[in-house]
Amino acid sequence: MDTLTVQDQMTDMGRRAKTAALVLATMPADAKDRALREGAKALRLAARAIQEANAKDMAFGREKGLSPALLDRLLLTDERIEAMAKGLEDIAKLPDPVGQVMSEWDRPNGLKISRVRTPLGVIGIIYESRPNVTADAGALCLKSGNAAILRGGSESFNSSHAILDALQVGLAQAGLPADAIQMVPTKDRAAVGALLSMDQYVDVIVPRGGKGLIERVSAESRIPMFKHLDGICHTYVHEKADPEMARQVVVNAKMRRTGICGSTETLLVDRSIAPQMLPVLMADLAAAGCTLRGDAEARAIVPTLDEASDEDWDTEYLDAILSVKVVDGVARAIEHIQRHSSQHTEAIITEDRVAAERFMNEIDSAILMWNASTQFADGGEFGMGAEIGISTGKLHARGPVGVEQLTTFKYKIRGNGQCRP
Amino acid sequence: MDTLTVQDQMTDMGRRAKTAALVLATMPADAKDRALREGAKALRLAARAIQEANAKDMAFGREKGLSPALLDRLLLTDERIEAMAKGLEDIAKLPDPVGQVMSEWDRPNGLKISRVRTPLGVIGIIYESRPNVTADAGALCLKSGNAAILRGGSESFNSSHAILDALQVGLAQAGLPADAIQMVPTKDRAAVGALLSMDQYVDVIVPRGGKGLIERVSAESRIPMFKHLDGICHTYVHEKADPEMARQVVVNAKMRRTGICGSTETLLVDRSIAPQMLPVLMADLAAAGCTLRGDAEARAIVPTLDEASDEDWDTEYLDAILSVKVVDGVARAIEHIQRHSSQHTEAIITEDRVAAERFMNEIDSAILMWNASTQFADGGEFGMGAEIGISTGKLHARGPVGVEQLTTFKYKIRGNGQCRP
Repeated sequence: MDTLTVQDQMTDMGRRAKTAALVLATMPADAKDRALREGAKALRLAARAIQEANAKDMAFGREKGLSPALLDRLLLTDERIEAMAKGLEDIAKLPDPVGQVMSEWDRPNGLKISRVRTPLGVIGIIYESRPNVTADAGALCLKSGNAAILRGGSESFNSSHAILDALQVGLAQAGLPADAIQMVPTKDRAAVGALLSMDQYVDVIVPRGGKGLIERVSAESRIPMFKHLDGICHTYVHEKADPEMARQVVVNAKMRRTGICGSTETLLVDRSIAPQMLPVLMADLAAAGCTLRGDAEARAIVPTLDEASDEDWDTEYLDAILSVKVVDGVARAIEHIQRHSSQHTEAIITEDRVAAERFMNEIDSAILMWNASTQFADGGEFGMGAEIGISTGKLHARGPVGVEQLTTFKYKIRGNGQCRP
Repeated sequence: MDTLTVQDQMTDMGRRAKTAALVLATMPADAKDRALREGAKALRLAARAIQEANAKDMAFGREKGLSPALLDRLLLTDERIEAMAKGLEDIAKLPDPVGQVMSEWDRPNGLKISRVRTPLGVIGIIYESRPNVTADAGALCLKSGNAAILRGGSESFNSSHAILDALQVGLAQAGLPADAIQMVPTKDRAAVGALLSMDQYVDVIVPRGGKGLIERVSAESRIPMFKHLDGICHTYVHEKADPEMARQVVVNAKMRRTGICGSTETLLVDRSIAPQMLPVLMADLAAAGCTLRGDAEARAIVPTLDEASDEDWDTEYLDAILSVKVVDGVARAIEHIQRHSSQHTEAIITEDRVAAERFMNEIDSAILMWNASTQFADGGEFGMGAEIGISTGKLHARGPVGVEQLTTFKYKIRGNGQCRP
């Protein structure tokens, strides 16, 4: 397939998405929810076919030499397919954001102003290895009345198309246009370039991938994006931390799943408690299979730690690796985080309310946690049903991007002949 | 001043703005409001100096051959200076958006989630002839805890600097950093290029100007922008319109002030009432000094109309000119508007609720009005105190951009040791 054909094909997808978006914008909640529930059923019925498609992708991934973290992202087990189906059903249960009156007020001159949620239009989602994004992103766009153009990674090509087939069954059963959720039908990278150039059809781009992808989108495209950058998340064990709580939360924050963006990459421990806490924390983490890289002070206390380089503080491992640093109090912890964080999620473990509030007020990240695992940085865990990503940008969407973040609004003003003096 | 120096100077401004933004982010409402009230006082005291500076700009503008509409935008009368001062006081009275809890909820696992407003950071505003933007934009940024870098048009250079001097008096009296509101101190156009490149310092660009400026920002800059594009606003007189109301609203919508973005540029009139309504409406408008350009059908009814060209339907006149078209019912009116509108503001005049709701639901513009003048498209008229512009984009800010739209948010999550299962 040559470049010209890809461009034409993409333009056609854009045009069809725009038309579908007009239909979806005025579609009642019932129809959208039915499509989601039928899609969930179809996913469960297709579990075997999806796993067969996934097996092809896994074999391709192993051949290509994908890291264990990336292979874990790619894998679709029975549980993960069930989680996807459950995700669709959860999204169906959410209130329809479209048409919601966000606020209304009257003016002294009698004008009645209301601010009403409306869909954004057409959303382009570019993602890499994780195929469940197909279901989550498609469903979230549908629920919020938007048409979706999905561009999955070449690694998850077969899995994603098998998932899309199930979503299409849902759309058909609810009488919604098939073009509501489209997927780029080629692995050709020119398709991404074409998608990024279609500002007449696409209202937002959601790039889910590494820095390279984000750079490409902001360099090539005039379409606004919800950027989902690295999760260089920090957990800070303050001197007033409950030691048992710190042990449990730190191991969970790092090791529950190392391949997700909310996993902790750097541990900060207060100097005054480091001699007692560090050996215990390091032993717990090592027992859980974590490789540990410490600064000089941490290594003086726990000599078995590897040496952390400058680069470690700016690295999202997405793997069972943790960088560890001793800091001198909350101000120094905040300072380190402000310099190295990707403004995603940071946690403080402490029994001291003042320190906790200061930590949450002064750090400019999307999510600040007090006495909880950074692994909760997730739209589902927030009660949003599912997420299309975690935005590390500050505009429009920040943190988990759920259905509300996929809408915009308009003002309706009702008068009785008012003229402006 | 050579380009290198401009770049260095701009980088220095950016760095200082970032530092000021950190201070402003945690500044109590009292201090910000005091700066606004003292700034208002200083504006009134400096009224003569401001008008002297404005006289220089007006002379320069006449020399340069600015249109009457642009000269009207540039002029600062006593009333307009008082309106600016009043605007600052109104903004001081608004609730402080920073720190507001937008929503909060508990999760079944005991996590307490709250979504809290925070400032965006540093906002760059690029504007053209209207010098009062200096006061409005500076004040709105300050109230919302953001640092502002202002770049006024060369036409309003002296007026804007005289206004900034008054704002600086307010900042000083309230003990706030002078760098909270900075203005580019040169007319050199290279300064705009430098500002657009400073994505490490500037969080949002607000371009207030023509299509050329918007194009330049989206081509040159990676910084997100709140685009303030043309206001090609429509007023549609539906067949069920109250004729007297229609007459009053149409004249107001077009002629109250022709140089603002909310003034109506195209009038649509239903075919069934055109023979009765058009002659009256055209006579009213002509009497008010409006030049009228009609389509063939309108000219068949009122032969004195000039002939509208295809271009007229896509033109923001910002002047006493109106294009007039006869349409066959609400569906055709919606169709015309969707094709030609700049998604700013559209109004329907009708006594028919169903037609009005359809008009407001189906048209994807920022502001939809029923039985009111499009000239109400203004942050002050919405009760926002003042506006930094009217966003015709759909992301983050849409319609009037007031203090709330100049904030973002973060999530604070309070737990007691929760680990994710």
